[in-house]
Amino acid sequence: MGRAHALGWRNAPAFFDPARRPELAVVVGRDAAAAQDFATRWGIPEVATDWREVVAREDIDIVDVCTPGDTHEPIAVAALSAGKHVLCEKPLANTVEEAQRMADVARAAAQQSGAGAMCGFSYRRTPALTLARRMVADGFLGQLWQVRAQYLQDWLSNPSAPWVWRLDREQAGSGALGDIASHIVDAVQWVSGRHVLGVSGLTQTFVDERPLPGGGGTAPVTVDDAAVFAARLDGGVLAAFEATRYATGRKNALRVELSGSSGAIAFDLTDSNFLEVFSVADGAGPGGGSSSGGGGGAGFSRIDVTDPSHPYASWWPPGHALGYEHGFTHQAVDFLDAIAEGRTPSPSFDDALRVQKVLAAVERSAANDGGWQNIG
Amino acid sequence: MGRAHALGWRNAPAFFDPARRPELAVVVGRDAAAAQDFATRWGIPEVATDWREVVAREDIDIVDVCTPGDTHEPIAVAALSAGKHVLCEKPLANTVEEAQRMADVARAAAQQSGAGAMCGFSYRRTPALTLARRMVADGFLGQLWQVRAQYLQDWLSNPSAPWVWRLDREQAGSGALGDIASHIVDAVQWVSGRHVLGVSGLTQTFVDERPLPGGGGTAPVTVDDAAVFAARLDGGVLAAFEATRYATGRKNALRVELSGSSGAIAFDLTDSNFLEVFSVADGAGPGGGSSSGGGGGAGFSRIDVTDPSHPYASWWPPGHALGYEHGFTHQAVDFLDAIAEGRTPSPSFDDALRVQKVLAAVERSAANDGGWQNIG
Amino acid sequence: MGRAHALGWRNAPAFFDPARRPELAVVVGRDAAAAQDFATRWGIPEVATDWREVVAREDIDIVDVCTPGDTHEPIAVAALSAGKHVLCEKPLANTVEEAQRMADVARAAAQQSGAGAMCGFSYRRTPALTLARRMVADGFLGQLWQVRAQYLQDWLSNPSAPWVWRLDREQAGSGALGDIASHIVDAVQWVSGRHVLGVSGLTQTFVDERPLPGGGGTAPVTVDDAAVFAARLDGGVLAAFEATRYATGRKNALRVELSGSSGAIAFDLTDSNFLEVFSVADGAGPGGGSSSGGGGGAGFSRIDVTDPSHPYASWWPPGHALGYEHGFTHQAVDFLDAIAEGRTPSPSFDDALRVQKVLAAVERSAANDGGWQNIG
Amino acid sequence: MGRAHALGWRNAPAFFDPARRPELAVVVGRDAAAAQDFATRWGIPEVATDWREVVAREDIDIVDVCTPGDTHEPIAVAALSAGKHVLCEKPLANTVEEAQRMADVARAAAQQSGAGAMCGFSYRRTPALTLARRMVADGFLGQLWQVRAQYLQDWLSNPSAPWVWRLDREQAGSGALGDIASHIVDAVQWVSGRHVLGVSGLTQTFVDERPLPGGGGTAPVTVDDAAVFAARLDGGVLAAFEATRYATGRKNALRVELSGSSGAIAFDLTDSNFLEVFSVADGAGPGGGSSSGGGGGAGFSRIDVTDPSHPYASWWPPGHALGYEHGFTHQAVDFLDAIAEGRTPSPSFDDALRVQKVLAAVERSAANDGGWQNIG
Repeated sequence: MGRAHALGWRNAPAFFDPARRPELAVVVGRDAAAAQDFATRWGIPEVATDWREVVAREDIDIVDVCTPGDTHEPIAVAALSAGKHVLCEKPLANTVEEAQRMADVARAAAQQSGAGAMCGFSYRRTPALTLARRMVADGFLGQLWQVRAQYLQDWLSNPSAPWVWRLDREQAGSGALGDIASHIVDAVQWVSGRHVLGVSGLTQTFVDERPLPGGGGTAPVTVDDAAVFAARLDGGVLAAFEATRYATGRKNALRVELSGSSGAIAFDLTDSNFLEVFSVADGAGPGGGSSSGGGGGAGFSRIDVTDPSHPYASWWPPGHALGYEHGFTHQAVDFLDAIAEGRTPSPSFDDALRVQKVLAAVERSAANDGGWQNIG
Repeated sequence: MGRAHALGWRNAPAFFDPARRPELAVVVGRDAAAAQDFATRWGIPEVATDWREVVAREDIDIVDVCTPGDTHEPIAVAALSAGKHVLCEKPLANTVEEAQRMADVARAAAQQSGAGAMCGFSYRRTPALTLARRMVADGFLGQLWQVRAQYLQDWLSNPSAPWVWRLDREQAGSGALGDIASHIVDAVQWVSGRHVLGVSGLTQTFVDERPLPGGGGTAPVTVDDAAVFAARLDGGVLAAFEATRYATGRKNALRVELSGSSGAIAFDLTDSNFLEVFSVADGAGPGGGSSSGGGGGAGFSRIDVTDPSHPYASWWPPGHALGYEHGFTHQAVDFLDAIAEGRTPSPSFDDALRVQKVLAAVERSAANDGGWQNIG
Repeated sequence: MGRAHALGWRNAPAFFDPARRPELAVVVGRDAAAAQDFATRWGIPEVATDWREVVAREDIDIVDVCTPGDTHEPIAVAALSAGKHVLCEKPLANTVEEAQRMADVARAAAQQSGAGAMCGFSYRRTPALTLARRMVADGFLGQLWQVRAQYLQDWLSNPSAPWVWRLDREQAGSGALGDIASHIVDAVQWVSGRHVLGVSGLTQTFVDERPLPGGGGTAPVTVDDAAVFAARLDGGVLAAFEATRYATGRKNALRVELSGSSGAIAFDLTDSNFLEVFSVADGAGPGGGSSSGGGGGAGFSRIDVTDPSHPYASWWPPGHALGYEHGFTHQAVDFLDAIAEGRTPSPSFDDALRVQKVLAAVERSAANDGGWQNIG
Repeated sequence: MGRAHALGWRNAPAFFDPARRPELAVVVGRDAAAAQDFATRWGIPEVATDWREVVAREDIDIVDVCTPGDTHEPIAVAALSAGKHVLCEKPLANTVEEAQRMADVARAAAQQSGAGAMCGFSYRRTPALTLARRMVADGFLGQLWQVRAQYLQDWLSNPSAPWVWRLDREQAGSGALGDIASHIVDAVQWVSGRHVLGVSGLTQTFVDERPLPGGGGTAPVTVDDAAVFAARLDGGVLAAFEATRYATGRKNALRVELSGSSGAIAFDLTDSNFLEVFSVADGAGPGGGSSSGGGGGAGFSRIDVTDPSHPYASWWPPGHALGYEHGFTHQAVDFLDAIAEGRTPSPSFDDALRVQKVLAAVERSAANDGGWQNIG
């Protein structure tokens, strides 16, 4: 994560014109040698091991929190309280309580010092998803009926894959829920412009204990491996969600599809430079027809989002693909612009808190065999 | 439906060697003119308007029931009681009670007269799904973790699409549940060899009334438009289901994916001549690797099921596609062989009853805001 | 081939309303037992072993020639001379001379007896290719610049695959050229509405002799295994063609793409229920742009040709796939309509002759190391 | 191009461990203001306008030539003669004569000063193509039969798209040939490990003059718009090539497919994180068969090359996509390692000269209506 963030800060002024030009000043890490190696590779002048010291320094304007979830709250709260702008990796925190505190502090800090706070749901900055949001906002879908979203990974599908800290509830908060369901819940709410009102779902832990990496026994898995849930969004929208680490053969498939009365939009992260769109109106166009409810014979169209007319397309000529890390540059640019202009960065800590509340509701529903849970 | 069945019976002996050679003897229809037109087109010698008379005739061996769901029970029960073999379209009936009665009668008739009874879940006979079942049975998946299944259509996505009988609970029993969720529930149970133990889900009716086709007012929609549900199958399997008529741009997308510890299998009806399979073991093969839990870098492989080594491949040379209707020929062949050999045809009425019970449980869960419902 | 044709004749009146209702009267085959088996499977009342006798019969109206290429000319000429309508499988003949004679006889017979003659390039009747032709004729492409067409098979890729008659120049006329290049040459000329003016190309025979099927030695391969050629079509169009039996892993990939100033159309037989179209104008539409020459960011759209608005869509509801053999039914319907209305069926023998001349020119060019050859 | 190269140098030590750590020292550009802007964005300390001065400086070790083709020769020759290592963008030069001189100088410089010279065919460093080469070298294909390669762009498909320097023979040398055919010729030779022996092909200029960008008249197009050619490679391989700027709707589709007796490999730049492979042997594996020559029913498998077991996979976790520019980092790393170890970098100037000779032969063949031309 540190590398993706460093690349984002460094590329921002090379490819875009952000309102502030960032300088990478200090790498903070508990392991001084690792921090130094990182600093050398990235040409960063200074390293430190105590974040408390760094967040208090006068010459630091931005604190970028890329640590595990259980340390987000103290670091972000300290930095915001010291008047620093904060970019915090997702999920915002391990519990709703922590996230609530962070969101409260962020709101207060914005008032007092003008500090900006952003949560790093970087997939929002994938050009295709940004385009999807714009099209939805422009009314492309008509009346939105349904959403389906999946985040499929497979790194636990092998039952003898080793234990890691992400399988421990203390450190990770939850499993597939916080790690990847958080992304699709944020993406769905952001692209659709709707809030999840309540959920009904199941979770499952398929393998209860796993071998410790160095040998010498096993450790228990205390988080969810997979979650399947239905949701209702405001405006009468029905949504289907799945997040799993057991979707064998699917390395990193984040998929979102929105179905409306005038059209549909589908995104798949494994094909991230394209957005698939379907327009009911095209049924009357070339090759189209008009007989059936869903728009005649016209089908989904693949928009190549590298075209200069699309979001964030200042990289390469049309048809030259962007990859995973480009969202981090876009995130840096948007963050720098927002704090320069005194706007609340998006996703705000409040946005991230809302995601956290949805995940907590899924956990409660699952504990209750699928019984309905409203989002608080 | 009548055309698909007629084609199936007629093509069976042309392309396969079924143990019995069927003859299309009588077309039964309430509308005599329509029945006659059908008979002429298909070269069928006789028409009738009263099914009771025909199912009682000595010279009739097989009764093929292609009527709407509310008449399945009386016709099938009469035919079986008269010692006829019965092929009945899906869903078996509009209610669990009717389906139960039909299954009971079928079991009794098999004992008494040797009559065979089969329910027409013809997608089982799509070569790719038959191959999927064989691969699962052969252990290809290892330990099965998860299943995801969707049946997406869009013919109601336009809110002014006209009312039809399928939107009326009296005639159709249910909406997307009975019409299309039935297919994916059957496919999942059959391919995986597992039963659904219980469900938690939501349904929704997006548009409450629709214009009558001829003009002159509207009629109420009294069935579900869409259903999203989670399920548990025996053996600790977690499943995600969605069936909808509002998936704009998706005409007829039946998709099933199974994820196991050794591999995965994915099927999409819109690409029905291929089965996508992922083998963890291939990670060590050409171009593969071994580092990650899900099988190194090897990816999904597209099996072209028209190869002669695959199920039902007696049609054309490899690479020459089959379409929708071929399943009906395969169904006819399998039915004819089963009754010739005195075996219970598959899917049996008991199999279809089990599907019906799952759908009823989804309705109860939805009425209960997603609360868990065991399959009776 | 016989099966595909029989199915086409039989299905024509079941699914369409052709102006004549065909009856399958006599199966002619050199092997009487095989002919009888065929007749039994298809419910055809009579068999014969001497085609000369049958084509002379008064009660026969249509002669359908499905024999190997070296017998096309005598049968078709005899039948046409006897005033029968003739449907002849492709390629029309093994040589330009034979094809020329057949085309001359067909033209004369049409004058004298009103007999219709059609060559069975059935892929024209794939709904997606028929739609492509309509769109081109309607001006969808604007100025046509380029065409690329491939027909890729792999049944000879294994060097020890056995010898068959298709590898013998005497019987087959040529290899990949006559068997599969003929299809793409016809498709390109028909869809584009242009003629090939000349060609420059290479052919290759990779494996010179192959084992005889029953063991006991080998036989020489005296035809081309693969052909790669460039062509110019009238109107300044540049075309790239490839036909091969060595495209390992490609079972039956017939692909045609046309690129014009206003749009593009792409077809792939392995995905035959869809036509991919790109409209430059869509660049200004939803999600589109306008910056680049090729139409902004809008991309190819997948038209599902099973929609009722598209050609030959009287089979099943939208989204229910057609397969390989449906083109034979469409061919039968179009042939029956043409002869009923006294129109020259399309593709005419003259159309097929033109294909033959292109293939002959490729052979001459290849013999001349790629030197240019005009079509005579 | 400058940006892609700068990013490559800068990211090399951040993500890899090259044997030399590069420092971006001087930006050279004729437009001092533009050069300064570039330097500022990238944190480069110095700018200059006279390349002659810079290539003579003692403190410069590497000269990276990103200028238009007509200046490659003087800059590279001067730099190499001054003992600098040179990375030169492709195509190496505008004529075979220039390329020959550069290759001669590079060979001499390597002897005299140990200077390394590399040509920037960066697509070689796309992980999937690097993997393809390794698999070919490991014998995956068995006997190689055929290659098909396309490079499809569409930025000239609109006949009123404005004139640019790339359409002028003086400045650009050639059109689609030098700009994009060069990439596929290099990719085919490199991946297959074979040389093109001779070619037969056609070129075409569809639009003879185009409007000048600022208005005020038109300028002539003096280069090829598209090229279609057949080739023979050593070892009896037949190849089909197409390069065009008129493939409407195809923004940047570089495709290479190799067909051999044991398998096939297919790459498409628009899907660059995957390599499609087909193994004949898999026909006997799960879901496979054995009946047909091309490997039973097993189909192409999609290898996700982001898996850590694949080339250059030190970026992100599996399934996190790389984009266009990553090849430039890989190129920088390989170049730095080669010069550190005293090896000739690959692609060498001799490799690039060979590409140039193939392009020149295509031009000669096209001028001769497709007549065969040996590569000198």
